[in-house]
Amino acid sequence: MTTTTLAELAALVGAELRGLDPAAAAELEIDGVAALRDAGPSELSFLVDPRYAGELEGTRAAAVLLRPDQAALAGALPTLVLEDPSGAVDRLASALAPRTEGPAPGVHPSAVVDPTATLGQGVAVGPLASVGPGASLGDGVIVHAGAVVGEGATVGVGTVLHPRVVLYPHVEVGARCVLHAGVVVGSGGFGFAPTEAGWVPIPQSGTTILGDDVELGANTAVDCARLGATRVGNGVKVDNLVHVAHNVQIGDHSLIVAQSGVAGSARLGRGVVLAGQVGINGHVTLGDGVRVGGKSAVFKDVPAGREVLGIPATDKRAAIRNMRTMPRLHELERRVRELESRLEERGDSA
Amino acid sequence: MTTTTLAELAALVGAELRGLDPAAAAELEIDGVAALRDAGPSELSFLVDPRYAGELEGTRAAAVLLRPDQAALAGALPTLVLEDPSGAVDRLASALAPRTEGPAPGVHPSAVVDPTATLGQGVAVGPLASVGPGASLGDGVIVHAGAVVGEGATVGVGTVLHPRVVLYPHVEVGARCVLHAGVVVGSGGFGFAPTEAGWVPIPQSGTTILGDDVELGANTAVDCARLGATRVGNGVKVDNLVHVAHNVQIGDHSLIVAQSGVAGSARLGRGVVLAGQVGINGHVTLGDGVRVGGKSAVFKDVPAGREVLGIPATDKRAAIRNMRTMPRLHELERRVRELESRLEERGDSA
Amino acid sequence: MTTTTLAELAALVGAELRGLDPAAAAELEIDGVAALRDAGPSELSFLVDPRYAGELEGTRAAAVLLRPDQAALAGALPTLVLEDPSGAVDRLASALAPRTEGPAPGVHPSAVVDPTATLGQGVAVGPLASVGPGASLGDGVIVHAGAVVGEGATVGVGTVLHPRVVLYPHVEVGARCVLHAGVVVGSGGFGFAPTEAGWVPIPQSGTTILGDDVELGANTAVDCARLGATRVGNGVKVDNLVHVAHNVQIGDHSLIVAQSGVAGSARLGRGVVLAGQVGINGHVTLGDGVRVGGKSAVFKDVPAGREVLGIPATDKRAAIRNMRTMPRLHELERRVRELESRLEERGDSA
Repeated sequence: MTTTTLAELAALVGAELRGLDPAAAAELEIDGVAALRDAGPSELSFLVDPRYAGELEGTRAAAVLLRPDQAALAGALPTLVLEDPSGAVDRLASALAPRTEGPAPGVHPSAVVDPTATLGQGVAVGPLASVGPGASLGDGVIVHAGAVVGEGATVGVGTVLHPRVVLYPHVEVGARCVLHAGVVVGSGGFGFAPTEAGWVPIPQSGTTILGDDVELGANTAVDCARLGATRVGNGVKVDNLVHVAHNVQIGDHSLIVAQSGVAGSARLGRGVVLAGQVGINGHVTLGDGVRVGGKSAVFKDVPAGREVLGIPATDKRAAIRNMRTMPRLHELERRVRELESRLEERGDSA
Repeated sequence: MTTTTLAELAALVGAELRGLDPAAAAELEIDGVAALRDAGPSELSFLVDPRYAGELEGTRAAAVLLRPDQAALAGALPTLVLEDPSGAVDRLASALAPRTEGPAPGVHPSAVVDPTATLGQGVAVGPLASVGPGASLGDGVIVHAGAVVGEGATVGVGTVLHPRVVLYPHVEVGARCVLHAGVVVGSGGFGFAPTEAGWVPIPQSGTTILGDDVELGANTAVDCARLGATRVGNGVKVDNLVHVAHNVQIGDHSLIVAQSGVAGSARLGRGVVLAGQVGINGHVTLGDGVRVGGKSAVFKDVPAGREVLGIPATDKRAAIRNMRTMPRLHELERRVRELESRLEERGDSA
Repeated sequence: MTTTTLAELAALVGAELRGLDPAAAAELEIDGVAALRDAGPSELSFLVDPRYAGELEGTRAAAVLLRPDQAALAGALPTLVLEDPSGAVDRLASALAPRTEGPAPGVHPSAVVDPTATLGQGVAVGPLASVGPGASLGDGVIVHAGAVVGEGATVGVGTVLHPRVVLYPHVEVGARCVLHAGVVVGSGGFGFAPTEAGWVPIPQSGTTILGDDVELGANTAVDCARLGATRVGNGVKVDNLVHVAHNVQIGDHSLIVAQSGVAGSARLGRGVVLAGQVGINGHVTLGDGVRVGGKSAVFKDVPAGREVLGIPATDKRAAIRNMRTMPRLHELERRVRELESRLEERGDSA
């Protein structure tokens, strides 16, 4: 953490300082931003949702960001009053975060860049990274320490490959992508034919194509296609430890939360959202804007715009009703048994 | 993609060209193979399953592979007629895929190979890979960029370690295995004893042994054993992001789909198939040929040959029936309530 | 495996040798320890739980460790009699395990350590590892081959970073931690705001702080915080392929089994145990000592000391009862239908 004074930070975001005299604010060192209940005496905090106003009382924060109409809630606490506390929080946190230089433009002497690779303007290749024959890195690409760019792979302008990313040969990564540490793009699709002699690999001759502005989380893996390409559309955001199988097609601006898996040849439309630990069966199609709840398993096509949940996934509202009934299932069986015996008795007595 | 002409490709797979004159075919450049609905005008496509014959109409493919008895379906489309379109597709796709050289035999100058390591004939060690003391690499082994072979580890003839694979010390990998990028073999098993002072590690003194012809997907992890060895049998195929815990035994020719996990000391027989995101409890035994459906959790032993599904996993047919009933569970409770009140009323009126 | 004689091993653990004459024991080479049904003729085995006494009969082990009160069970088998077979097993297995030297203290010539980094006494930096500007490694830290320590990151005394671990810039790792191969600490949290133009990243300005004695399994990923820090407490043990999202707080001595995921801003108390493949929803709080069963999804806060299970997770005992009823759900619906028609008939006949 770097530090700066409360007065400087108030000026940075154009906030009005209340509850503290300017001289004190000019000397109060601040080193972070945190939630009300976590903040310490050298940190700022903030209130956006008035439901949490109760936490203002116990906070140890040096000062609190508040909207003008909520400023009175702070009581005697020093406050920074401004129209958009939420936006200011991110600016302040960025200002206070430690500086990270990253690899400087140029190729680190320990990196191995094949002479037939093409590097754009301002490309930075970090320590012990490797760039294969015929690979192409667009302007401003950053290849962090230990990343591996396979032969013939192409990386678009401004993309960042974090440490130990692996691009298999000939994959295509768009512009302004962020691939986090340990990401693998283009690994062999999982296809085997059963024979008397065991599983025989089905050749995976295709490739993987990521659009522009794609983000892939740590240790996520996207396989190549058997034929053609596994495609991840523009603006798609993928969390950590996600599996994308061979020939999957993911539409633009979809979002996939951690540990979800999309099986072979499944197709996700535009703006699809998968919550965490979701599984999508092979060859299934999800229409545009489909939303799948956490831990669901989707075995069938889902039409555009639907929200689904459960194992197997069904309409979300119905699934919630059924999930809420589950805790009474054992009791329900008992009630049925009782009904049966009452009816039996009456039958006998009839 | 490399390109070649339609005439050359027809000759390559011994197909009869129909619907296009030979001179045109000799000039028509083809650069890929794709599904009917995906193929563009410079790509081939194919029909194997007649249910998809309807897609022939709208395809933009340059030509379509068909069996003689289905050739008429293509109408005016140029066709390559041959007995086995499915097999030909893979040969054509391989022919059209861009060439990948991989690391040349020998040790790249940037790699670090301990002088006490043993390298067979034609071994290739790529850039920035490391091979520890006493490690042994069989003939034709390929160690891709950034992979790490621990001290004393042994790797069988013809095995390929993709970029950033890690073999812990003393693990044994068989012949002709393929370990995809980010695979970890031999990491410490997860065993801790609860004490007053917290969790105390149980020593994991064993190793990990992979048979021949094993494939492990990207970022999959196989732990070492507490005692003896975690064993993965011959011909076992494992997908991406799979977890195999300490002392697990996996029988020959089993297949494990992505994101499944097998807990400590579980035993899988020969030819077991786990679909995606399956969990196998510790110490559970699955008999030969057991098949577990997607997203299941297996808490108990399963006899040979059975198919199971669900959380907890039970007989597959019964589980499907029960899963299909689930969407009506809430309604079922309402029906029971109604039965109860009807019976109550009658009781009153009786 | 290294080998030594049965007589030497008996002496090592202070066991009394029975059923074999000392001269023979002094010549019998032993190379491992294994379970009764797995052990071969050059291995030792053991019995702790008398329920497995039946396995003594068929074992091929060279000798068996037994408590004095159970020694008679071994019949004619050579035995090592001692008070604590379980503890002795680990000592014997460690003695028999192959020696692993690991990287020697000092910096391997192929490693890249920035001149502004600070290294304590006895630090070992292995081949092709990289340590960034301003990073700080405490006494005795081991950085294995290919690991990447980001700029400004700090690593406590005695911590081991296995091959290809990645620490993002400025993260803090405590003392005596073990981070297995492929672990990523401090990757960007997954936060995006929906806009007309697609998902806009929410700045993730915070960091990640791991306490002392933390263990993280292979390919596990722990994200940095949006603000402040993602925190993993002292003595926390985490298995392979686990996901810990931004701003998560994990209390001391918690334990998380493989492939579980903890979503953003969730809080786990002290001594929480998550079994395998569990999902914890964002912003959920689990009290001290909460235990979550395998494959569960926790959508709501759980008070201290509770055991929960299921999707969604509810009280464990009730959940087990309901899970056991599930296999009869389809049948239950049939029974309700039958009740309805019987009542209908009676209604008609009434």
